[in-house]
Amino acid sequence: MAPHSAPDSSRRSERSRVAILTAARELVTELGYTRLTIEAIAARAGVGKQTIYRWWPSKGAVVFDSILTLSEGPDGEGVELPDTGDLEADLKTVLRATAAEFADPAFEAPIRALNTEIINDPALAETYREKLERPMTEAKKRRLRSAKRAGQLAADADLDLVLDLLYAPLTQRWLLRSGPLDEAFADALVEATLRAFGR
Amino acid sequence: MAPHSAPDSSRRSERSRVAILTAARELVTELGYTRLTIEAIAARAGVGKQTIYRWWPSKGAVVFDSILTLSEGPDGEGVELPDTGDLEADLKTVLRATAAEFADPAFEAPIRALNTEIINDPALAETYREKLERPMTEAKKRRLRSAKRAGQLAADADLDLVLDLLYAPLTQRWLLRSGPLDEAFADALVEATLRAFGR
Repeated sequence: MAPHSAPDSSRRSERSRVAILTAARELVTELGYTRLTIEAIAARAGVGKQTIYRWWPSKGAVVFDSILTLSEGPDGEGVELPDTGDLEADLKTVLRATAAEFADPAFEAPIRALNTEIINDPALAETYREKLERPMTEAKKRRLRSAKRAGQLAADADLDLVLDLLYAPLTQRWLLRSGPLDEAFADALVEATLRAFGR
Repeated sequence: MAPHSAPDSSRRSERSRVAILTAARELVTELGYTRLTIEAIAARAGVGKQTIYRWWPSKGAVVFDSILTLSEGPDGEGVELPDTGDLEADLKTVLRATAAEFADPAFEAPIRALNTEIINDPALAETYREKLERPMTEAKKRRLRSAKRAGQLAADADLDLVLDLLYAPLTQRWLLRSGPLDEAFADALVEATLRAFGR
């Protein structure tokens, strides 16, 4: 049996792989994670179920990889935040963009489905952090370190805490639909965080 | 058919109702929400499946009510935050207690299961907010308004934003298991938020 990992992209069946990942992303958006089945993905992609099971051990694994293909580079490589020299302006740009992504059904539905799984599956959560979240977190920290050097952020600011204050309220309002998720909210988060950790 | 609502607590079958809710809470902790069935709840509670369906329309509804019984008063009535006159100390007490609850499997497992449902069910999310969250939020805002009067919080502070900054990072670390959830983190959240919104 093949190892449980994403297929080598050089294989001839690359087209099937793309079709499967596209089908998984579309179907999780249309049906939600619970009602999504491997059968439905196979039918939409025009492949046999066994083709999917040859490459992925579970429904969760396919959906996870389908979301990885949404991110810009492989494993977030090359992700950089804007650095115009104005931390407040740059963070507002980034948080407004994040809020806009959360408002886009094509983008948010598969990530919502994945989050449901992550909440109940510590191992999948760890994979998620390693593959998707860590590269983004590193890019954010690079921007914050640049701000420290520019004297726009307190030299002793705990960067994990700064990122929690910026992003956790945004993520929570999105996941729990507990309040408006607009540019005013994004801006208010940046302003409050910089009052707490500005120079 | 009986209306889809929790039974009148005055009915003779109050003992069955309590047994069902206890079974639901225990089983969601032991099995997780996905593997939990109405059959299993009925067997553990020593009642027939039809007894459960007479009172609750779905698995989600039983689990939801089983969690309501965890909160102190009916619908959170009478919930008050400590008010010693020292906002920072009181918020640290409350956030440390919240972090400790999240570390207690008997408490956190059913709420984790409920959150999974809420993320995918906007109607259930609305019920959750109305029944469980709103009374707690009102109690927290009463404490923050008292702090405004005492000059310990900026008079124009947006209380929803203050609560988001205090609680969303805590909730996110718990739900996604993305970092340590200890007293140091609770204290750091209170200190950062008060730097942003203190007088």
